[in-house]
Amino acid sequence: MRLPIATPAEIDIALVGVPFDGGTTNRTGARHGPREIRNQSSLTRRVHHVGLTSPFDLVRVADCGDAPVNPVDKEESLASIAGFFEAIRDGGAIPLTAGGDHLITLPVLRGLHRGAPRSLIHFDAHTDTYDEIFGTKYNHGTPFRRAVEEGLLDPKRMVQIGLRGAISDAANYDFARAAGIRMIFIEELMARGVAEVMAEAREIAGTGETYVSFDIDVIDPAFAPGTGTPEIGGITTFQAQALVRELAGVDIVGADLVEVSPPLDPSGLTALTGATMMFELLCVMAEAAERRRS
Amino acid sequence: MRLPIATPAEIDIALVGVPFDGGTTNRTGARHGPREIRNQSSLTRRVHHVGLTSPFDLVRVADCGDAPVNPVDKEESLASIAGFFEAIRDGGAIPLTAGGDHLITLPVLRGLHRGAPRSLIHFDAHTDTYDEIFGTKYNHGTPFRRAVEEGLLDPKRMVQIGLRGAISDAANYDFARAAGIRMIFIEELMARGVAEVMAEAREIAGTGETYVSFDIDVIDPAFAPGTGTPEIGGITTFQAQALVRELAGVDIVGADLVEVSPPLDPSGLTALTGATMMFELLCVMAEAAERRRS
Amino acid sequence: MRLPIATPAEIDIALVGVPFDGGTTNRTGARHGPREIRNQSSLTRRVHHVGLTSPFDLVRVADCGDAPVNPVDKEESLASIAGFFEAIRDGGAIPLTAGGDHLITLPVLRGLHRGAPRSLIHFDAHTDTYDEIFGTKYNHGTPFRRAVEEGLLDPKRMVQIGLRGAISDAANYDFARAAGIRMIFIEELMARGVAEVMAEAREIAGTGETYVSFDIDVIDPAFAPGTGTPEIGGITTFQAQALVRELAGVDIVGADLVEVSPPLDPSGLTALTGATMMFELLCVMAEAAERRRS
Amino acid sequence: MRLPIATPAEIDIALVGVPFDGGTTNRTGARHGPREIRNQSSLTRRVHHVGLTSPFDLVRVADCGDAPVNPVDKEESLASIAGFFEAIRDGGAIPLTAGGDHLITLPVLRGLHRGAPRSLIHFDAHTDTYDEIFGTKYNHGTPFRRAVEEGLLDPKRMVQIGLRGAISDAANYDFARAAGIRMIFIEELMARGVAEVMAEAREIAGTGETYVSFDIDVIDPAFAPGTGTPEIGGITTFQAQALVRELAGVDIVGADLVEVSPPLDPSGLTALTGATMMFELLCVMAEAAERRRS
Amino acid sequence: MRLPIATPAEIDIALVGVPFDGGTTNRTGARHGPREIRNQSSLTRRVHHVGLTSPFDLVRVADCGDAPVNPVDKEESLASIAGFFEAIRDGGAIPLTAGGDHLITLPVLRGLHRGAPRSLIHFDAHTDTYDEIFGTKYNHGTPFRRAVEEGLLDPKRMVQIGLRGAISDAANYDFARAAGIRMIFIEELMARGVAEVMAEAREIAGTGETYVSFDIDVIDPAFAPGTGTPEIGGITTFQAQALVRELAGVDIVGADLVEVSPPLDPSGLTALTGATMMFELLCVMAEAAERRRS
Amino acid sequence: MRLPIATPAEIDIALVGVPFDGGTTNRTGARHGPREIRNQSSLTRRVHHVGLTSPFDLVRVADCGDAPVNPVDKEESLASIAGFFEAIRDGGAIPLTAGGDHLITLPVLRGLHRGAPRSLIHFDAHTDTYDEIFGTKYNHGTPFRRAVEEGLLDPKRMVQIGLRGAISDAANYDFARAAGIRMIFIEELMARGVAEVMAEAREIAGTGETYVSFDIDVIDPAFAPGTGTPEIGGITTFQAQALVRELAGVDIVGADLVEVSPPLDPSGLTALTGATMMFELLCVMAEAAERRRS
Repeated sequence: MRLPIATPAEIDIALVGVPFDGGTTNRTGARHGPREIRNQSSLTRRVHHVGLTSPFDLVRVADCGDAPVNPVDKEESLASIAGFFEAIRDGGAIPLTAGGDHLITLPVLRGLHRGAPRSLIHFDAHTDTYDEIFGTKYNHGTPFRRAVEEGLLDPKRMVQIGLRGAISDAANYDFARAAGIRMIFIEELMARGVAEVMAEAREIAGTGETYVSFDIDVIDPAFAPGTGTPEIGGITTFQAQALVRELAGVDIVGADLVEVSPPLDPSGLTALTGATMMFELLCVMAEAAERRRS
Repeated sequence: MRLPIATPAEIDIALVGVPFDGGTTNRTGARHGPREIRNQSSLTRRVHHVGLTSPFDLVRVADCGDAPVNPVDKEESLASIAGFFEAIRDGGAIPLTAGGDHLITLPVLRGLHRGAPRSLIHFDAHTDTYDEIFGTKYNHGTPFRRAVEEGLLDPKRMVQIGLRGAISDAANYDFARAAGIRMIFIEELMARGVAEVMAEAREIAGTGETYVSFDIDVIDPAFAPGTGTPEIGGITTFQAQALVRELAGVDIVGADLVEVSPPLDPSGLTALTGATMMFELLCVMAEAAERRRS
Repeated sequence: MRLPIATPAEIDIALVGVPFDGGTTNRTGARHGPREIRNQSSLTRRVHHVGLTSPFDLVRVADCGDAPVNPVDKEESLASIAGFFEAIRDGGAIPLTAGGDHLITLPVLRGLHRGAPRSLIHFDAHTDTYDEIFGTKYNHGTPFRRAVEEGLLDPKRMVQIGLRGAISDAANYDFARAAGIRMIFIEELMARGVAEVMAEAREIAGTGETYVSFDIDVIDPAFAPGTGTPEIGGITTFQAQALVRELAGVDIVGADLVEVSPPLDPSGLTALTGATMMFELLCVMAEAAERRRS
Repeated sequence: MRLPIATPAEIDIALVGVPFDGGTTNRTGARHGPREIRNQSSLTRRVHHVGLTSPFDLVRVADCGDAPVNPVDKEESLASIAGFFEAIRDGGAIPLTAGGDHLITLPVLRGLHRGAPRSLIHFDAHTDTYDEIFGTKYNHGTPFRRAVEEGLLDPKRMVQIGLRGAISDAANYDFARAAGIRMIFIEELMARGVAEVMAEAREIAGTGETYVSFDIDVIDPAFAPGTGTPEIGGITTFQAQALVRELAGVDIVGADLVEVSPPLDPSGLTALTGATMMFELLCVMAEAAERRRS
Repeated sequence: MRLPIATPAEIDIALVGVPFDGGTTNRTGARHGPREIRNQSSLTRRVHHVGLTSPFDLVRVADCGDAPVNPVDKEESLASIAGFFEAIRDGGAIPLTAGGDHLITLPVLRGLHRGAPRSLIHFDAHTDTYDEIFGTKYNHGTPFRRAVEEGLLDPKRMVQIGLRGAISDAANYDFARAAGIRMIFIEELMARGVAEVMAEAREIAGTGETYVSFDIDVIDPAFAPGTGTPEIGGITTFQAQALVRELAGVDIVGADLVEVSPPLDPSGLTALTGATMMFELLCVMAEAAERRRS
Repeated sequence: MRLPIATPAEIDIALVGVPFDGGTTNRTGARHGPREIRNQSSLTRRVHHVGLTSPFDLVRVADCGDAPVNPVDKEESLASIAGFFEAIRDGGAIPLTAGGDHLITLPVLRGLHRGAPRSLIHFDAHTDTYDEIFGTKYNHGTPFRRAVEEGLLDPKRMVQIGLRGAISDAANYDFARAAGIRMIFIEELMARGVAEVMAEAREIAGTGETYVSFDIDVIDPAFAPGTGTPEIGGITTFQAQALVRELAGVDIVGADLVEVSPPLDPSGLTALTGATMMFELLCVMAEAAERRRS
């Protein structure tokens, strides 16, 4: 978004890239997401057309560059990403992150962790609460289970929106059900509508510190084809924008947008969608940051 | 779908490919549909996320390979396809077929024919009830007229859903109207909604044996671009899934999904959509097959 | 659409191409729009599937070729385009134009001008009422401001439908608001629906002579990706068709469809959408032309 | 090439399209070749940069449109194509044809036939002298065998240049060897060079009437990817141009360029290559036609 | 190339982008060239594999950003580009420029001009010495004629290498021949080889100050498809690299690489080729700059 | 290649896929190489057109499926790949492997190891003898250094052909030079020609057991664009085929073809090239296997 480069201590919201997809079990490419999202963000502008305010007028926003990662060493990357976000947290900034695959949310949450587990509002076609895939516990299908186990998130204050797609085993949802995670499938979202579902989501998240994770594959692949695990029957971008705008009032302490995979996105539409959704997230985060500051 | 290979006598539902597009008058490529749908089906999984049951647990399903076709001889192909499906019928299995262009539905119906004409629930942007195109009676715009004339289908129990697009002559619909085929245009579908339209469709099909034909071009080309005769203004994949799920309770004796054209589908989205829709069809067919068995 | 070539004096509706994109500030390519729209129109047919009438039966329609342009001389092109449309006006025909970028609407309006300012019904993601971009007053973001200033359009009878997307400055809308242009943003369109919004649009346009300008980017980029300034969160093609059909009864004296950019449209879907939307426009224009004649 | 439309009797060289690919056993699409080659020919110009003469100054050249074909009826198409070329022959023009798949060369030769068999200079990766494929004798792998059997070509005066690629059976070459057809494989062409090989080709063709058939797949797929049966290890376009220029002096009575398949050619490079090679063919044909006239 | 940003006075060689294609008569897109070449240059590295030296060790190199341009105002852009390069010249640096279309070479030469006309070594498929196209004297087909007329280049010390492609009129070469510009067509280049042709080129350029202009379309479109006016039958990238390395010893005072058009380059291969060729140019320029300094 | 599936003990040559790219530092996707190469191999045939013999007639060849890998665990994958190839070695078969990135050659060599170090003939744009990248010793830039250190290869009998491209540090070649690895850069290959270079390569490899590793990026990206680290200025596929045929007489005990990356290969040309090159390798391996057996 043609932003200045700055350090966390000088700003309220830090835009960060995490170019890592070493947690992807099938079609990779999300490591190139931050670069393309930055490229496409050259098409975005300052002022939201609905509220007619600009996040850049509300708070201090800057691009803090990419978190350090090692594309061929997953353990090292998990550690270095966490360290990077710890520094952001300690600097007093709130991160808005462009992934990378969904595994990156785990080290982000670790880095941002401070005492109590957070609430989570999670937009995704998939639950990402598997225990293991291919016998490994750390991949892009497991981050939210690990985060619950590690006390980073409070499952009772977690809501997942837009879920769909065939699964390998009917038991896949058992963990979430037992833990109290609220799963809102696409059928329920379409039937009840954005406003009603998001009212419930805000209630679940409560007034506490909340993390927002937006997997681009919650959006239908007609609108966002460039992602590793597309599921047909998703939401439109119009609905996606409405969902994010309904986050107004939530105490957001961090957000990410993940799984944009440029090699699978020859037209650039997915990166443009990612950049625009990040602008929407930025707008609600700026309001939250402003509230915190005052 | 990574299925075992089997013969019709050992199974309840036979997945079949018919790699033939010799009935296509304009943009070909549907002959490569079965291969790409099989490729993309590697992304699909076993259990439907709504019903939480797996068709593979209800009945015996296997891939019976491709029907024999001759890409440069239409007459021979019509005969060899019909023979292949006759063997499936005689083996006691119900076929779920990946085309191929829409002409293949004619030899499939011939092969499956047994005494009385069937009901038809037909999802398509086009009626495919032309009499002739380019002076030939057998092409992908005519199969349902031929099927009515040959007594394979009962026009009074036929319903076509999702029709749209400019036509060459206002008289194009005369045959269907005279024969009693119910045509539900896209405008009516959008106005009344999936549930109401499908309730009518089930009533038209009645309790008798019903064939289901799903032309991928009923879906809007934004969601399924890889097809030979795209028409804008179509349904979403979410609506497509809802339509197929409303087939629950219908006595399905065969189904096909046709007109996926991989050369026109560089992203693979259409083949993925085709594979997912076949999984949806498989789920309702498995329930029908289970009812029949019991 | 495989039409005969003719001169304006012999016909009622003139199809025209304006292969000029010298007003484009970012991603060009709309200069190739007319050719690709013509190519794709080979897939369209004569009779509308809803009304079951053909515009070619109501009035005389012909392709009048491309307006003369100089790709490397903007001033000259503005003059030569205006001259071309003056001849159409003087010949007594009504033009349906394929752009080109949106700047071309200005010389079209100049050429068609005859005494009083016209009404405008304008479908677009953008207002195109900037004063200057890059310090120049004539580019694809300014035509409607210039047209108001030049007395070609009456701002009180102008309505813009489908607006959305972040803007550079909250003051961007000041001119339109002060002048009395009615702006209907996408949120209002989605909330109120096509029928209600278009009833208001028809009321604003009134019974006077009305020009219709359709920027392809009002449609969501999932449905029409091949355009220079895509904005996510747009309308579907089904909605676009419904919007245009609601122009029935308006006294249309000219229409255009602009910003189809073939280099950004490898699949051809946008050109197909453009060609189909032009057919929809042609149908309502033919009815208007017939009314005028009688 | 932006040519006038004319009838054969008024001209010396007739440009013709044959949009038929019903002889293709695997990847179709060549039916769209003529349209795209025409599109791309808008980039070509009048004067050859080496000889600095224009074929349009030497002889009368015009576009005679497309031969009539029925995309779903091979027998009918073979007959109607032959009839079309018979009319060209009787009108006194020499055809330069854009295919279509290679089967079309057979009806072209039938239509042009007049008494004695012709010589053939044939550029191709494949011999196309199979007896049968899939049990059918008329497809794009058999035209030259049929043409020899029917007395249209004299095998002793036939030369095939650029052959390569694995074959299904070592006996595939037996017919050509027995009949006396000279096969020049790519290895020999690369070792001896264009000039030497073409000197031999001219000697084989002799002074009699000669047909030239250019299959785009003789060119390496890096240069011409859009074709149904690509074979790596081919010639460059620079070599292709040199080969055709070495036809100077041959008494050409017809030529074709076949197997350009636009659906497999998203960049348009193959159609551009086809259009440019047709211009090269036109230049040597124009000289031949001029010699004949004088 | 991940370079520091600097001002001309601090450095020896200035990398510059000129994102302007307002001189393009047909297919635009070169305005996006600098961005994509910068993107692809992230794949390049520091040390040339033949000489094993790095230009960054020889001289001071930095990225000076983009010259200011107005995409919708050609006159203004010609002036602002010239001004930008004047500042580079006055700062004492030598520019290596990424275009943009070929018209930009004219204002670059104007900006760099200092007293006497320069020599030119020009790699291109086209002469770009037209007088007018579409009646305008300033477009991407005319820069070298204008530069000669304005005394920026000495035609007797100009050589053009790699020319090819049909032309509109045999008189197109008259100006160059009369002025004494040496034209080396592709046929001569291929026959004589790179070393011999470049020896002649160095002799023509002489020991005086020489500008080097490299149009990407001198390379065959199989290797560099993303350009507005592709001509088949060009050189390989291996030959292109050899040509540039043979510039060793020439007193280069500026160079450009133009006509990379990203919208026509979906694979990014052309931008990669452009970035690599700029590295080759940089290596010979660094040696020249080092010689000057010492 | 439509081969039977078999176990190593029953066959002479085992075709194997290794779908792993966890050693890729930049653009991934080679994990999908085996599937696409198998897909494209459906276009290949049985008999080589030069020798007119078929490898399938000389020895027993079968597809042994894919080696087990874990896409998100590099250590585990290195071990499981090595184990898989150990079984092939113990079964008495010679493997021809489709990668995967180049790191997979290391576990393949480990699995095949038996006592003494092997010779290596290595076709590649890169040396892949780095010590570390990103601080890790096991990635696709280091396998041959590790293999020398582990005693799997004898550096004095190693030759690398086709090297090119800028490097990060002039010291990159020090290890190879010190160890005695013969590096043949592209410039030397082009100057001396395939026959002479391969004569030297055969001499270096000697009469001992030799492994052949073919990185698809040795071929120019115009011919094989779908690879992670393309370098312009490479060899043609014609040259690549000639290089491999010159392996005749070498005692090959294993070969691989790596770095085909389908997500970067939308046209499928690279996978087709990979499949064809594997057929060429298979032909020379079959001769070697036959010699061994007799």
